[in-house]
Amino acid sequence: MAALTDSFVARLCEWVRIPSIGVDPRHHADVHESAGWLRDRLREDGWPEVEVWDHGPALPAVFACWPAEDPRAPTVLVYGHHDVQPVDPVERWDHPPFEPVISGDELLGRGASDDKGQVAMHLLGLKAHLAATGRSAPAVTLKLFVEGEEESGSPHLRKLLEDHEDQLSCDLVVFTDTALHERDAPTVNTGQRGVLGAEVTFYGGTDDVHSGRAGGAIPNPATALAKLVAALHDDDHRVRLEGFYDDVREPTAQEREDYASLPFDEERWLANNGGGARATQGEPGYTTLERIWVRPTAEVNGISGGYTGPGFKTIIPASATAKISFRLVPDQHPDKVAVQLREFVREHTPPGIRSEVGLRGEGVPPYAIRPDDPANEAVVEAMSLAFDEPVRFARAGGSGPAALLQALAGVPLVYLGATLPDDRVHAPNERVVVPLLLKGAEAAAHLWRILAQADIAKRLTR
Amino acid sequence: MAALTDSFVARLCEWVRIPSIGVDPRHHADVHESAGWLRDRLREDGWPEVEVWDHGPALPAVFACWPAEDPRAPTVLVYGHHDVQPVDPVERWDHPPFEPVISGDELLGRGASDDKGQVAMHLLGLKAHLAATGRSAPAVTLKLFVEGEEESGSPHLRKLLEDHEDQLSCDLVVFTDTALHERDAPTVNTGQRGVLGAEVTFYGGTDDVHSGRAGGAIPNPATALAKLVAALHDDDHRVRLEGFYDDVREPTAQEREDYASLPFDEERWLANNGGGARATQGEPGYTTLERIWVRPTAEVNGISGGYTGPGFKTIIPASATAKISFRLVPDQHPDKVAVQLREFVREHTPPGIRSEVGLRGEGVPPYAIRPDDPANEAVVEAMSLAFDEPVRFARAGGSGPAALLQALAGVPLVYLGATLPDDRVHAPNERVVVPLLLKGAEAAAHLWRILAQADIAKRLTR
Ligand SMILES: [Zn+2]
Ligand SMILES: [Zn+2]
Repeated sequence: MAALTDSFVARLCEWVRIPSIGVDPRHHADVHESAGWLRDRLREDGWPEVEVWDHGPALPAVFACWPAEDPRAPTVLVYGHHDVQPVDPVERWDHPPFEPVISGDELLGRGASDDKGQVAMHLLGLKAHLAATGRSAPAVTLKLFVEGEEESGSPHLRKLLEDHEDQLSCDLVVFTDTALHERDAPTVNTGQRGVLGAEVTFYGGTDDVHSGRAGGAIPNPATALAKLVAALHDDDHRVRLEGFYDDVREPTAQEREDYASLPFDEERWLANNGGGARATQGEPGYTTLERIWVRPTAEVNGISGGYTGPGFKTIIPASATAKISFRLVPDQHPDKVAVQLREFVREHTPPGIRSEVGLRGEGVPPYAIRPDDPANEAVVEAMSLAFDEPVRFARAGGSGPAALLQALAGVPLVYLGATLPDDRVHAPNERVVVPLLLKGAEAAAHLWRILAQADIAKRLTR
Repeated sequence: MAALTDSFVARLCEWVRIPSIGVDPRHHADVHESAGWLRDRLREDGWPEVEVWDHGPALPAVFACWPAEDPRAPTVLVYGHHDVQPVDPVERWDHPPFEPVISGDELLGRGASDDKGQVAMHLLGLKAHLAATGRSAPAVTLKLFVEGEEESGSPHLRKLLEDHEDQLSCDLVVFTDTALHERDAPTVNTGQRGVLGAEVTFYGGTDDVHSGRAGGAIPNPATALAKLVAALHDDDHRVRLEGFYDDVREPTAQEREDYASLPFDEERWLANNGGGARATQGEPGYTTLERIWVRPTAEVNGISGGYTGPGFKTIIPASATAKISFRLVPDQHPDKVAVQLREFVREHTPPGIRSEVGLRGEGVPPYAIRPDDPANEAVVEAMSLAFDEPVRFARAGGSGPAALLQALAGVPLVYLGATLPDDRVHAPNERVVVPLLLKGAEAAAHLWRILAQADIAKRLTR
C-alpha cells in the first residue's frame, strides 16, 4: 500500500500542476490538457473503456467504464469534476497555486481538494478494491464521469447527460464532491442545497441626475431597491417570498439529533467558514448547522448603483442592481421560487420605477437522500470500515448537480467524500489532507464490494 | 453696445477654450492658465488692483478691486468661479466641449454657463455701468473674487477667505452662480440648499464568504445596509433622522404663493431636470419646486457591496457601502445633521456588523435671504429694469459656498444670475443664452447705481 500511496501523491501533484480553470477562457487549453491527463491515467490503470467527451462549447468531460464480470452486478456511476476555481487573489497564496507543496500530511495547491484529489481517490480506491479482492474486474460495473464545467455551474451538463444517456445508465450514482464534517468526525453527506441566482434591476430615469436639481422630487432607484432588499427577510431572518416555505421539508427529529451530536465550535466555524464574521445569525429555532444544511435562505451577493468610486458625486442614480441568490432545500424547486421572486419584485416596484429580473439559468434543485436508504446504508458501512469508527450524518450547504444527475439517471444518488470543510476550496492556499483521501479510497474499495452483495444488489437493480 | 457685445462673445469664447477642469489634476495647468487669462482681461479693462491668489494646494483664485470715488460708497464683493466641470461622457457632446460654437443666440461649450459666462457678464456689466453713468470708477467699490475650486467643493475656500479677510471686507456679497427660473420668467434667486455628504460602510467578516457554506447563518452586510437605507425615509418620503426637521424653516405663505405663480411644466421638468424620470415623487403637501427648493432631503448617490461584475458569484460580501447626501435648508446645519446621522447609523447597525461613517468635509450650510431684505430689493429693482418686466422669486436646489461667504464676511449676500436651469451645466452640450447674459450685465450696471443711492447705501454700511 505504501507504493500505491506514493504513486497516488505523485499523480495528484502532476494533475494539480495543470491549471484547469474552467471559468477563465485563457485556461481552456489547460482544461483540455487536464482531461487528456486523466484519460491517459485511466488507460494506464487498465480501464477498458475511456473517452474524452469534447463537444464544444462544453469543456471536455472524461468518461470511463470497467464492467463487472458478473452481468447481474449493479452498475455504479461515480461523478466528479476536473476543472478548478480561479486563484485570485493570487498574492494571498503562500506558494504558487499550481506548484503543489507537501507539508506534513497535507498536499497544497488549487484543486488538491476540489475536486482532483477526490477523483484521484477513486482511481486509488479501485486499485485497492482489485488488490483486496484479487479480482481482475470490479465487483460492480464502474462508470466514471468527470466533468469540466462544475465551477462554471455545469451549464452544458444536462445536454451532455442526455446525449450520452445510454452510456451513463446505472443503478446508483456516487457523487464525489463533498466533505467530511471534521477530521475527527467522519460523516456521510446526505444532501446539498439547491440554488437560484437572480439579478434584480430598478430603473429610474435615463440618466443620473444631479441631486441638487431633483433631490427630494423624483424616485431614487437605489432607495427603492434597498427597500426591496430590506423586505426580503422578516425580523426573524425568514425569507418573505410568498409561498417560499410551502415545499420545505422539515428535518426529522432523528436528523436534528444526528446534527446536534456533531462537534461544533462556533468560533472556529466563524473563522473558517464564516469568513471571519463576528457572530452567527439566522432563523430562530434552528442551529447554525441546520441553518446552512436544511433551511433555505436568500442572500444578497452584490449590490450596486450610482457613483461608487472614491470621493463623492451627488447624483440620483439612473438605476440600481442587486444580485440575490436563494439556497433551496428539498422539496423546493428553482422554477417555483423564480415565479415567487418575480411576484415579490412586482409588488415591491414603486411607482416611477421600472424593474427587470434576470435569472442565472434554470437554477440547481436541492437534493437529499434518506439516511436509511439501502444505498446510503452501504456507504455508511463502507465509511465506518475505512475510518474504523462509527460515522455520522451531515449535509452540505452548497449546491451541485446532484439533483440533475439523480433525476436524469432515475436512480438513487449517494455521496462519498473525504475532504474537509476547511480545505480552503475556492480560496487561497487550498489543501487536502492526504490520509483522509487514503481512507476515502479504502471506503470506495469497500463500497464496491458491499454493493455487489446479493441483498443490496437485488434492491438496487430491482 | 453692439461693439461691447461682440467683444464680450469673443472674450467668452476665448475663455471657454481653456479646459480648466479643476477636479482633474491633468488639467490643473489649465486652471492656472484660466486664472492668468482673467487677470489679464481685468487689467485690460482698467481694474486698478488685480491679483492671482495662488496658494498651493488650492487652485488659483483671481481677486480684483476697483474703488468708488466716494469713500462713503458701499463695498460690494462679487463671487464667481472659473473652474469647470469634467466633460465625460465626451462622446455625447455634439461638438468638442472646449471648441465653443455659436448657434442662434446660444454659445455652446463647457463653462459657457457655469460659471465663466456669468463672470464675463460682470466684466461687461461694469463697462456698461461706467459708460451709462459717464464715470471713471464704479458708483460702489467693486471687488471681484473668482475661485478655482468650486466644482471640487471649494475645499480651501475657508482658508483663502480667512487669509485675505481684509482685502475681502465688504458691505454686501453678490453671488453669481445661479440661474433664472425660465427664459420667459426672470427671477431673483433667494437661496440655496446646503449639503452634507456621507459614506456609510457596514463590515461583516474579513472576507467574502461562499454563500453555500454560510448562507442563512451569518449577517450579510449588504442586507443590513439595505435595511438602513430603507429606514432612511418613511412612507411619505420624509427623512427619519431623529431631529432632522427640528430646524427646518417653513416657507412663508408669501413664498409659497410666489413659487406657485411660476410657470412649471412637469413633463418638461422631468425631461430636463429629472434625467428622464418617469414621475415626480416626494413629501406630501409640497409642490415639486418646494421639494427641491425649501425642503431637505436624503438621497443615496451610490451603493455597492459584494460581486457587481457580469454574471454571478454566490458570496456573502465582507462589506457594503452607501454614499448618501443630505440637502439642507435654513436653519439646518451640517454639523448637527452629521450627529443625527451617526446616531441613526448606530441605531441601525445590527449585531455582528461594524459600521463606519465618513463625512465629505464639513459640509455646506444652506443659505437664504429674505425677499424683502433691502439688498435683495435692490437686486429685484435692477433685474426688473434690465428685463423690462416684473421679476419673481426662485430658489436653487443645489449648493454652493454662499453661506460660508456670508458668514465670514458678516454681511448680507444676494444672488445675481442670468443663466437657465436647462443650460446643461455638469452635462454634455452645456450652453448659455447670450441675450440673457447681456440682460444680466445690464442688471449689474443698474445694481451698482442703485446700491450707491443714499438710502440703501446707508442701510448697508450702517
Ligand atoms: Zn467541487
Ligand atoms: Zn457653478
